[in-house]
Amino acid sequence: MLNFKTALSFKYINRVNLNVLVKDSIRSSSKLGWSHMATESDLRDWKPPSKQNKFVTGLRLRNSLKHSENVEFVPEEGRKVKWYTCGPTVYDVAHMGHARTYIACDTIRSIMQNYLNYDVFFVENITDIDDKIIQRALKEGKEFSDVSSHWEREFWSDMLSLGVSLPDCITRVSDYVEEIVEFIERIVSNGYAYESEGSVYFDIEAFRSSGKHAYAKLEPNSFNDLNRILDAEGSLTEVSANKRSKSDFALWKRSKENEPSWDSPWGPGRPGWHIECSAMSSCIFEKGVFDIHSGGIDLRFPHHDNEIAQSEAYFDSNRWVNYFIHFGHLHIKGLKMSKSLKNFVSIKEMLSRYNRRQIRLLFLNARYDSTLNFNYDAEGMDETVKIDDELYNFFSRLNSRLSKPELEQKWSEEHLELSRMFERLKTEVHEAILDNFDTPEVLSLIRKFVTHVNTFMSDVTKTVNYTQALSFKEYLYRILGVFKLVEPGCEYGVDKEVSTSENEKKLLEELVNLRQKTRVFAQAALKSNSTEEAKSILKHCDHIRDVSLPNMGIILEDDGSSVVKYKSLHDQELERLRKEEKKKQREQLERERLEILSTPPEEYIHKSFPNKFGKLDEQYLPVEYIDGTPISKSERKSMEKVNEKVTLWFS
Amino acid sequence: MLNFKTALSFKYINRVNLNVLVKDSIRSSSKLGWSHMATESDLRDWKPPSKQNKFVTGLRLRNSLKHSENVEFVPEEGRKVKWYTCGPTVYDVAHMGHARTYIACDTIRSIMQNYLNYDVFFVENITDIDDKIIQRALKEGKEFSDVSSHWEREFWSDMLSLGVSLPDCITRVSDYVEEIVEFIERIVSNGYAYESEGSVYFDIEAFRSSGKHAYAKLEPNSFNDLNRILDAEGSLTEVSANKRSKSDFALWKRSKENEPSWDSPWGPGRPGWHIECSAMSSCIFEKGVFDIHSGGIDLRFPHHDNEIAQSEAYFDSNRWVNYFIHFGHLHIKGLKMSKSLKNFVSIKEMLSRYNRRQIRLLFLNARYDSTLNFNYDAEGMDETVKIDDELYNFFSRLNSRLSKPELEQKWSEEHLELSRMFERLKTEVHEAILDNFDTPEVLSLIRKFVTHVNTFMSDVTKTVNYTQALSFKEYLYRILGVFKLVEPGCEYGVDKEVSTSENEKKLLEELVNLRQKTRVFAQAALKSNSTEEAKSILKHCDHIRDVSLPNMGIILEDDGSSVVKYKSLHDQELERLRKEEKKKQREQLERERLEILSTPPEEYIHKSFPNKFGKLDEQYLPVEYIDGTPISKSERKSMEKVNEKVTLWFS
Repeated sequence: MLNFKTALSFKYINRVNLNVLVKDSIRSSSKLGWSHMATESDLRDWKPPSKQNKFVTGLRLRNSLKHSENVEFVPEEGRKVKWYTCGPTVYDVAHMGHARTYIACDTIRSIMQNYLNYDVFFVENITDIDDKIIQRALKEGKEFSDVSSHWEREFWSDMLSLGVSLPDCITRVSDYVEEIVEFIERIVSNGYAYESEGSVYFDIEAFRSSGKHAYAKLEPNSFNDLNRILDAEGSLTEVSANKRSKSDFALWKRSKENEPSWDSPWGPGRPGWHIECSAMSSCIFEKGVFDIHSGGIDLRFPHHDNEIAQSEAYFDSNRWVNYFIHFGHLHIKGLKMSKSLKNFVSIKEMLSRYNRRQIRLLFLNARYDSTLNFNYDAEGMDETVKIDDELYNFFSRLNSRLSKPELEQKWSEEHLELSRMFERLKTEVHEAILDNFDTPEVLSLIRKFVTHVNTFMSDVTKTVNYTQALSFKEYLYRILGVFKLVEPGCEYGVDKEVSTSENEKKLLEELVNLRQKTRVFAQAALKSNSTEEAKSILKHCDHIRDVSLPNMGIILEDDGSSVVKYKSLHDQELERLRKEEKKKQREQLERERLEILSTPPEEYIHKSFPNKFGKLDEQYLPVEYIDGTPISKSERKSMEKVNEKVTLWFS
Repeated sequence: MLNFKTALSFKYINRVNLNVLVKDSIRSSSKLGWSHMATESDLRDWKPPSKQNKFVTGLRLRNSLKHSENVEFVPEEGRKVKWYTCGPTVYDVAHMGHARTYIACDTIRSIMQNYLNYDVFFVENITDIDDKIIQRALKEGKEFSDVSSHWEREFWSDMLSLGVSLPDCITRVSDYVEEIVEFIERIVSNGYAYESEGSVYFDIEAFRSSGKHAYAKLEPNSFNDLNRILDAEGSLTEVSANKRSKSDFALWKRSKENEPSWDSPWGPGRPGWHIECSAMSSCIFEKGVFDIHSGGIDLRFPHHDNEIAQSEAYFDSNRWVNYFIHFGHLHIKGLKMSKSLKNFVSIKEMLSRYNRRQIRLLFLNARYDSTLNFNYDAEGMDETVKIDDELYNFFSRLNSRLSKPELEQKWSEEHLELSRMFERLKTEVHEAILDNFDTPEVLSLIRKFVTHVNTFMSDVTKTVNYTQALSFKEYLYRILGVFKLVEPGCEYGVDKEVSTSENEKKLLEELVNLRQKTRVFAQAALKSNSTEEAKSILKHCDHIRDVSLPNMGIILEDDGSSVVKYKSLHDQELERLRKEEKKKQREQLERERLEILSTPPEEYIHKSFPNKFGKLDEQYLPVEYIDGTPISKSERKSMEKVNEKVTLWFS
């Protein structure tokens, strides 16, 4: 029985729980039937995930689901970031507009994973069923799938040359047609889509009037933008006359004779554009809700708005993705760079003029979600090349300081001041990153710091301590590494392919050395016939094999073709030493065993313990010491043990 | 005027503030005089820093100031971790006991900085004034400071060979004697120390009876452990007969004639051992309070307890360091490895048998704060070598999978299951790290995962997707990189010195190739006098310079000594192209200018706009079109502009 006080606190707890329930019920309103009271505006209202048991870094980002302000990022589950991004439609060469989108995405993914320490699981799709691909295949007289796989390969190759990391998972539409059909069937059975003349359309009116969903959450004002809606349907699409509303979009499109098609309950056809992302993301993120959905800003409406509608219709829930991130466009002379406007510069073309570090710097120097004006002429990249040079020169200078290690100098007020400035830099960089990934601000902070340290180092009365210079370099390389401006284990400005590792330097030195000697020798041999030089060059060749290469940990074996083994000589040496030691131990044991084997049992005890015991019994165990006194019980026992061991060895 | 409601809420706010004040007053109790009511036990009670505006990761660690349980780590300021660790007394070779301490420290520092993303500022001291150093210098007839700087160099060199990062700041005692004297003066003037026969002692009784401080916060039970107290005083120390208590320890020690000494208000002498850390840390961390103080477990009492007492006495505050971390000892056959017990294995000796990766693995496989039993015999490292081999073999296998890139296969249930397992691994590794840096648990989790993926890869009916294999590798390399088992940009098992970068492979190939050719040539030249071979070898040498090396981005210049330039050829080529383009633009402008210069002004307009205009005026500007109609005002204006431009060019 509850007493009055307990009852009161019980009531209090109930009220608290009720509060939680009310909040939860709003978030999953459709299931509880509360939603009928909610207006479309209420349903459109974005609510952040609960912070309880979540990894919260203070990251605030621009969420297209919340129009007015940046919002705090809170994962759906612990530290996990489940992320789906719209990949390319693979029918043509990728251009700098694509580079902008995928580098911006790669940058913030890298920040979240490698700097902020979220566990990012990043999925990207490949749209390999699309009217543009069909058109190109028809035009070129090629197999539809040959066209898409060719351009998919080209796309990933471009991404790798830009340093964009591969996704954790890639979903290709043609692999998921069956799942897409099932996805559409459920939307139909939930009452949010209908079949018409072999195609299936999403029923926007049914969706809106359900009282459970709002349509066009990302761009409510684009609701009636028929041009964009029809443009997204694809140029080969026949629009059914029986569509219930002009805004209704295709989930499944009937295919004509010469178009690729897949079986479905509605006859041969192919998936609409929007449905693929809803269906494929649900195959990978099995619980439905995930954290981030991203893509270029042009995808916000109708593509992403329709994806939201489809997924809500499938799960019959008012919540699907927590954060929608959109990347700004690349403009060239005020117009969006695009295939259709023919004002594009391909990634390969750009890479023939600038390296990938410079291209990434160009994009890092603008916010990922802003429009970037790009001038493709001789001066257009000057600012970027200037920043690149500034950083390159700074790190060359810092490395020159670091090439002279010395014992720490006492920290003067100057060193402390420099250290305080460095600590401020780290704090401000962190804050800029948390502020919607403000990479241009990070670059600006780093450049100011670099200028300051340069001035400090130019002052002949001042010295930067070795440990300080090293801390600066390590921190800056870490941040620039997250931005992919510095490759792991490489210096700034040096690609991995042009690494200046110690070993490589030595190798090159050897090569150059040998080459020089060979040349001189060969030149001389053209004139005279001395064998002395030939002997000397052979000696040098042996030296490379016997001294120089082993010192680099490389073993060169002189058979006909010269075999090179890579495993570190040091490690091999250590393994050899350990094996030798074990072998010695085994040999020692073996020697002892042989010794015993060659000893008659009656002699063994006297031989092993000389001058200790006297008489032995019939088991050849001692009964007395050499002076005749009987041996103790414990001595007897230990002798029995010795005997057992010997017997075992004999066996 | 306040109305009733406002007054109420005002009162409420006041009460809240009061609460905060009460809490604060306990923490800085000495200043408010509240402490007189506090018992020594209250004063010893550890309280965590406030979480407000702090970067909180959920890290829990063993804090020697809080005896019973692990506590959450909260920085004193934002994301900063101000950390001071006790470095070595430099008088002899560093052994595996030191390796344990500094590798354990380096590991958790790396985790905090590179995994948990704290801004760590790590200070380490070098004790270069000490009785042991004096004794060694006297024995060897060397300068005192030569002995210390020799062994300091040796120490850092050992640390680097173990992969231990240098501190952000190193404080060397001999650089700070002046500051130490000032530090002692203030303790004396605060009433917590007294001079006696040229030495200064800490007055434990005055400190305890102040009602503001507790003595021996870390090891309250060791309070009277006179052996350890005297041992810490140094073997050359004459203990004054006038010490007020046997437990009082020296802040300043009078030096004898043959001992190094520094001036002080109490005559020539040298600092006591404990005072250096209190004084030097306060020079670097100017606000007094800092986050972490660490050292070997043997330093807990009396060294660290005395440091706390000194610093509290100096700042006259009951709070100095928020977290005290102590590293477990290395035991060999049950005894602590130490110089005095002569049971030590030097770091260099160990490195002649095992590489640093294996040594770090040995320590990672035990918790940093546990005692580690180490067997220095052939089997002692078997478990460690086994783990190393397991990881090496796994990554070789994974790399072999990654050497065959291919378009993504559709994710089957097997891939999804593998992915779920991978996500679980990441979560569990994170939890283990937050649990007082449980590195053995992390290794165990990784090994289980590796076993599972190995089994999966052994099944011929299954394939690991390329992207999945890459994600596994990147994540595991990241964690093992934080643990310093994988070097940046290198493969597992490959030291940076033995890097197998593509470029290096090619270089080596070139070298081996040339060497082979040279040998064959030289061998042949020993027998015959053919000049054809000499020509061929010269051609090959040119090919290296003109084709092979440029393809690696290396420029070889053939002057007498062969100059090598490292800057990437690609970058140079790009720069050259840009310069050429700008040059072309300039040349074009110049051509236009020359064209104009060679044109008489009266002909210029007709030449530039052929068949357009008729008569010109006295300024050589057109007044009519070729058909005689007068030109418009706007046309006239644009012609004036053309003329201005021309005039400018003439000037």
